[in-house]
Amino acid sequence: MSKAIDFYFDFSSPYGYFASTRIDDLAAEYERKVNWHPLLLGAVFKTTGGVPLPMVPLKGEYAYRDFERTARFHGIPFRRPANFPLATQLAARAMLWVREQHGEAKAVEFAKAVYRAYFVDGVNIADTDAIASIAAAQGLDAASVIDGANSAPVKERLKGDVEAAMARGVFGSPFVIVDGEPFWGFDRFDQLEALLKDGKI
Amino acid sequence: MSKAIDFYFDFSSPYGYFASTRIDDLAAEYERKVNWHPLLLGAVFKTTGGVPLPMVPLKGEYAYRDFERTARFHGIPFRRPANFPLATQLAARAMLWVREQHGEAKAVEFAKAVYRAYFVDGVNIADTDAIASIAAAQGLDAASVIDGANSAPVKERLKGDVEAAMARGVFGSPFVIVDGEPFWGFDRFDQLEALLKDGKI
Repeated sequence: MSKAIDFYFDFSSPYGYFASTRIDDLAAEYERKVNWHPLLLGAVFKTTGGVPLPMVPLKGEYAYRDFERTARFHGIPFRRPANFPLATQLAARAMLWVREQHGEAKAVEFAKAVYRAYFVDGVNIADTDAIASIAAAQGLDAASVIDGANSAPVKERLKGDVEAAMARGVFGSPFVIVDGEPFWGFDRFDQLEALLKDGKI
Repeated sequence: MSKAIDFYFDFSSPYGYFASTRIDDLAAEYERKVNWHPLLLGAVFKTTGGVPLPMVPLKGEYAYRDFERTARFHGIPFRRPANFPLATQLAARAMLWVREQHGEAKAVEFAKAVYRAYFVDGVNIADTDAIASIAAAQGLDAASVIDGANSAPVKERLKGDVEAAMARGVFGSPFVIVDGEPFWGFDRFDQLEALLKDGKI
């Protein structure tokens, strides 16, 4: 089997969410595995000087329109969240803890549920109770997930993961690396697919 | 005939160049006219706090790779210019003067020649002699083009055009507005085409 696809995303990123609805099917089509890596864009932006799109003059209004139009264009359910962007440390750490305790498949299921809660159901995923509810709905023990997410080793793990991602050149969400080739943005999935299909691009 | 497509671009923008190789054919397919508007991203970035892509940590290296890969993917001739980015006032003003004196078709021909010189032939288009040569190769009187480009009314016109673009929400290159719908980026040409085809998106 060929090398895995590394998929980096921030839970507060609409384009990361769009990518999360497609990456597994795309990978499966070309017999690839996907490794899901939650990111903290806030930490990345400290290095790149980046600013969340909606806070940039002129770009902000366009960004909201593009989120909704891109969702329609690709047939992805989307509702503009009231709280946007928001802190995603808790969600990211909870995902790492779920992976550690229950494996990759369960962690990915949890991640998809978090994204859906935020970008479809309007849930404030920065809220501890919200993450607990999502965990419970996934058949996980909510209290353990929250405790685990807030534990020192998981916090350190996430910090290390984000640093490792930046060391590989990751600076946005979604960001995909496959066979050493980096792709930034859901709008590069056409080029990503070309690489998977042809082995080069 | 339906309303024209407004196409905004900076002569130093690779994605603007890619878009310039496609916009006229795309418009023709849906019986639309294109109005070409040269922009000065430097002036726009003063408002948005934007920075040229290659100067952003992490993003910079990726940007060059993405320029080349996107060109290959779409089959567009491209060679990374030695001087990048560079000042595009002279090229933009020259285009406005050519339009004033010789009409839209000649101005668009000139614009395409400037883009090709920069992104295919490696010409430094910030240089007065280079713009003069391009003008001459287009059958224009080089000295008149340079004098016209440096005249006060043309300078004022470009300043006003850039301000008018920003007032419409334009903040990047390429930027297309059609039937009131804004599209930022060559990677939104799929959505632009959907609007032209279906009348909505």
